[in-house]
Amino acid sequence: MSSESTQDGEDVEHRTLIVAGTGISGLTAAIYAARSNNDPLVFEGDEPGGQLTLTTEVDNYPGFPEGISGPELVNNMKEQAKRFGAEVRHGIVADVDDSDRPFRVTMKNGDEYTADAVIAASGASARTLGVPGEDELMGYGLSTCATCDGAFFRDEKIVVVGGGDAACEEAVFLTKFASTVYMVHRRDEFRAEDYWIERVMEKVDEGDIEVKWNTELTEIHGTPEDGVDTVTLVENDQGYPTDKLDDPDTREYEFDAGAVFYAIGHTPNTGYLEDTGVQMDPEGYLTTKGGKGGGQTETDVPGLFGAGDVVDFHYQQAITAGGMGCKAAIDADDYLENLERDEKPAGEPMAPESDD
Amino acid sequence: MSSESTQDGEDVEHRTLIVAGTGISGLTAAIYAARSNNDPLVFEGDEPGGQLTLTTEVDNYPGFPEGISGPELVNNMKEQAKRFGAEVRHGIVADVDDSDRPFRVTMKNGDEYTADAVIAASGASARTLGVPGEDELMGYGLSTCATCDGAFFRDEKIVVVGGGDAACEEAVFLTKFASTVYMVHRRDEFRAEDYWIERVMEKVDEGDIEVKWNTELTEIHGTPEDGVDTVTLVENDQGYPTDKLDDPDTREYEFDAGAVFYAIGHTPNTGYLEDTGVQMDPEGYLTTKGGKGGGQTETDVPGLFGAGDVVDFHYQQAITAGGMGCKAAIDADDYLENLERDEKPAGEPMAPESDD
Repeated sequence: MSSESTQDGEDVEHRTLIVAGTGISGLTAAIYAARSNNDPLVFEGDEPGGQLTLTTEVDNYPGFPEGISGPELVNNMKEQAKRFGAEVRHGIVADVDDSDRPFRVTMKNGDEYTADAVIAASGASARTLGVPGEDELMGYGLSTCATCDGAFFRDEKIVVVGGGDAACEEAVFLTKFASTVYMVHRRDEFRAEDYWIERVMEKVDEGDIEVKWNTELTEIHGTPEDGVDTVTLVENDQGYPTDKLDDPDTREYEFDAGAVFYAIGHTPNTGYLEDTGVQMDPEGYLTTKGGKGGGQTETDVPGLFGAGDVVDFHYQQAITAGGMGCKAAIDADDYLENLERDEKPAGEPMAPESDD
Repeated sequence: MSSESTQDGEDVEHRTLIVAGTGISGLTAAIYAARSNNDPLVFEGDEPGGQLTLTTEVDNYPGFPEGISGPELVNNMKEQAKRFGAEVRHGIVADVDDSDRPFRVTMKNGDEYTADAVIAASGASARTLGVPGEDELMGYGLSTCATCDGAFFRDEKIVVVGGGDAACEEAVFLTKFASTVYMVHRRDEFRAEDYWIERVMEKVDEGDIEVKWNTELTEIHGTPEDGVDTVTLVENDQGYPTDKLDDPDTREYEFDAGAVFYAIGHTPNTGYLEDTGVQMDPEGYLTTKGGKGGGQTETDVPGLFGAGDVVDFHYQQAITAGGMGCKAAIDADDYLENLERDEKPAGEPMAPESDD
């Protein structure tokens, strides 16, 4: 690490590589980048450890036959990254300026850094519906994290919105606390691993979960003082009822509930890259290139790489995020090696090492 | 599992999904496929556990801050796959017939299976140079696995051919046994992680490794009875000396050596797919499609997926192989779900589950 004076005369810390995010992809990138001597500085962001820290037990990360807790797995990776020399700091990246090199990275607290390469591994955050009552009740009966907040709602009727893996997992988990869990899903089938569908169906058989198929939530009623009281639901046999509000077959009704959990997917945390030349899809996922041998981490901006949930809107598993974090570190290393080679004065002999 | 009669009247075991290979990618695919109720049958092939079983210590697989031995990591994954219902059998896939569905999978011992989907995760095998003496001395002083065979050559001069991660790792490992390790590399710099380059350079400083830059091995002399005696080396300052044998600056000489280890890369094990419609590059690596969210596992043959070292000629890490195995299982599950849906008679109501 070194500091350099900018045109404004300020001192700015310069780093070879900055990694935004300490989820599985960011930490895997950090492990590999540290082993490649790229001296990574890794920023934790506002959800240190990423999505996996919200999971109690991870059963499908290969290598742990009896499962491992999400926080423990993340912590293991953090220790591993530090062991090889990665530096992890608190801080939220607010902006990346790619108009010149090195990149200029501005933090939310105003701190600035320069970096030769940047890996965006800042993950995704829980999505909301944007319905009335939501902003007012978030944190007061409405939550996006069953693991975090489930235990506050013992013996309550709990509504879970969603029909994917996360919704199924959260619904099953919440049966520990709820009098009954009501899954509200806008279609007539889940979009989840069979494993989770079966766990839900077992709980349905046992009377702990009731699935409200072809149903959507349109309003949450309550107060911050007393929490959630009721929700408004709409239902239509053909699915997607909010698209069919004028359909006479669409039924709207109030439903008693003590808590609401959203499990309707995530939005990638890529706002800080909006002023760069990086291509994003309409939802904000980074578009990356194929790369050699199946790489997926180069963006349209040379030196800026994406890994994990900022890129992957489909697989979103710990092991796939890790794979992509590794690729980003290797791709970044290739980029940095070429940068160094290009900067070397002509005639200087090649070092036996391919890096510093 | 079930059996079906073919047109020839034989009984052939039918499986939803066959996975060829029990390396990291195959076992990760098995974990995910088992959790998706695709009842995977996994064949071990002739290198059970894959490349990683040849590695003593794996330091860069995320989740094990103190490292884990290759065989232990592989065994953990195997237990994990079995825990969720994957079946692992001995057997080498000799041929896949994709002319009809289900696929017809023929084993080396003549056994036949049918399968609705196949994941090729059969990895890659060590490459050889094709020089005189090689066939005769393989296993008698010539080896492709330092971990397996290093201890046989205590206090010998050991030649390691190659300049990548594997060559560096093997050379460092072999210093435990060798009087001196001689790395023979055709270029003037390594193509390896800095971590490994530094470990090699430390050993060079300590006098345990000598690097013969711009040098290639052209012949191995010895007998199966007495092992390797000498090797023929060629050297040219400009690198790639075997391309420059007529160059007066190319020097050829005999060199005493008690053992030779090849660490010059791998050839993908994809021969059994040659009669299918799968696209391969000239080296035999499977060409896969981008897929949703950065997938890399669909081949040109619907229902046939590739993962790990049969596809990836570049990154080749445990974590990237795992990521791809997971993607292959998810892609195969999507394919199988669609297959089942297409086969369902019109008018039959959709089940709440999206699979059986």
